[in-house]
Amino acid sequence: MVLSLIGVGLEPEDITLKGLRLARECETVYLEKYTSIVMDDQEIERVVGKKIELAYREDIEGVGDAEARIITEAKQKHVGLLVVGTPLFATTHTELMIRAQELGIEVNIVHNASIQSVVGCCGFNSYSFGRTVSIPFFLEGWRPYDFFRNIMSNFDSGLHTLCLLDIKINEPTIDTLLGRENKRYNRFMTINEAISQLNEAAAHHHSDMLATQKIVAVERLGLPTERFAYGTAEELGGAAYGPPLHSIIVPSGKGNAMERECLERFFQSYQTP
Amino acid sequence: MVLSLIGVGLEPEDITLKGLRLARECETVYLEKYTSIVMDDQEIERVVGKKIELAYREDIEGVGDAEARIITEAKQKHVGLLVVGTPLFATTHTELMIRAQELGIEVNIVHNASIQSVVGCCGFNSYSFGRTVSIPFFLEGWRPYDFFRNIMSNFDSGLHTLCLLDIKINEPTIDTLLGRENKRYNRFMTINEAISQLNEAAAHHHSDMLATQKIVAVERLGLPTERFAYGTAEELGGAAYGPPLHSIIVPSGKGNAMERECLERFFQSYQTP
Repeated sequence: MVLSLIGVGLEPEDITLKGLRLARECETVYLEKYTSIVMDDQEIERVVGKKIELAYREDIEGVGDAEARIITEAKQKHVGLLVVGTPLFATTHTELMIRAQELGIEVNIVHNASIQSVVGCCGFNSYSFGRTVSIPFFLEGWRPYDFFRNIMSNFDSGLHTLCLLDIKINEPTIDTLLGRENKRYNRFMTINEAISQLNEAAAHHHSDMLATQKIVAVERLGLPTERFAYGTAEELGGAAYGPPLHSIIVPSGKGNAMERECLERFFQSYQTP
Repeated sequence: MVLSLIGVGLEPEDITLKGLRLARECETVYLEKYTSIVMDDQEIERVVGKKIELAYREDIEGVGDAEARIITEAKQKHVGLLVVGTPLFATTHTELMIRAQELGIEVNIVHNASIQSVVGCCGFNSYSFGRTVSIPFFLEGWRPYDFFRNIMSNFDSGLHTLCLLDIKINEPTIDTLLGRENKRYNRFMTINEAISQLNEAAAHHHSDMLATQKIVAVERLGLPTERFAYGTAEELGGAAYGPPLHSIIVPSGKGNAMERECLERFFQSYQTP
């Protein structure tokens, strides 16, 4: 039968006409909740005009060798999966697509805006971004500093870096995993936490980049309430910010003249909060 | 007054609900024709449900010191500009946004899918792309080989490269520029032309990358008729392809295991045309 992977962008009104048509044709529509920002289920339900089920990691990736529920159902009927941002951005959806195609399920892909496609917002040229990095929540005894190497490599090549900050959606607590309780939680890395981790990673790599280079703190990139702040890591790390998602852009040291002018003119209206 | 920059994605049904709402609120709506693929004006007119004017480079960037028509009009009323793909992808729109804001014009930005946000299509992880390069039409006496340096740099860093191929929309002929005739033309670089230029640039940089490394030829990336071919530059350079747009992906030599598996499984069903 059919599996439609439908990107819904960053807010409910971002759904495309094609996405809306396919979502309405589906017998069952899921909203993927765990990989990205929390989109308001009721709002998207109202826009699509039908009941929407929530899908968690196990529904999409399966558990162990068990087939994912969404695949099992797509063998029998037309199943839709609403993906915040755009599908195929990470390998989860690519694997889902390939697995479905191997089973003879027809797959529709509906593209949309992703956080990566909106980085032009503050005057950066999209062509001048290098590899995007993800900053994971450090744990005691697990402090992976590798992402900083990618930032340095982009910087040395004259490229900006978009840093996506870690999120945990519907994560079980340790006690839940041990069967002692049944609690799950959401957690979004703040700009402050990210800057603290950036500083730690920079020290590990003996880099003084953050001491000499201004960076951009972005709240809710791509949403109507987005806000930018431009300053040193020290200035931005001590400031207060609003609700998630937060992101950080580390500009290249170079940038062409037009881009630098855009950036400077743009940030004249933005101060460190 | 108001200027709405509305991304319409890659085909008419890609417009978002927000884009549709704003386009319908505008007193005048333009479709930007010159920077990207030719979207069917009548089809998008039918979708939006109102008359749409075509905008060319001079309407958006102005000529010399003259103010761009779209800015002049946006001082008086709500003007919309439909942009194929997503706005703010290149600096043209960023400059337009900043110029309008300086004049006290309210600016709305409606994001959408861009060609860069759909590269996950063939199993590539979006996070593993380096800087995107543009391959310009070479002219006699003007053969800029710099783009190849960026491909090599991505390759050496274990990153894929999306190569966007040059397009000319509504370009005047030399005789039109000289006032001898009034002809304009459209031209889209083919995969074959791009591979020929890639080979020339590789030779200039003494690189044997294209002799040892398979690449991906993409027709109409992100559209329902998209097709992929995977092979050596020699194989793909001699093949026949369908209508534009064409693109090329130069995969990194490395890639993680999962990604490589995705790619290999994906391309099992695609042969050199």
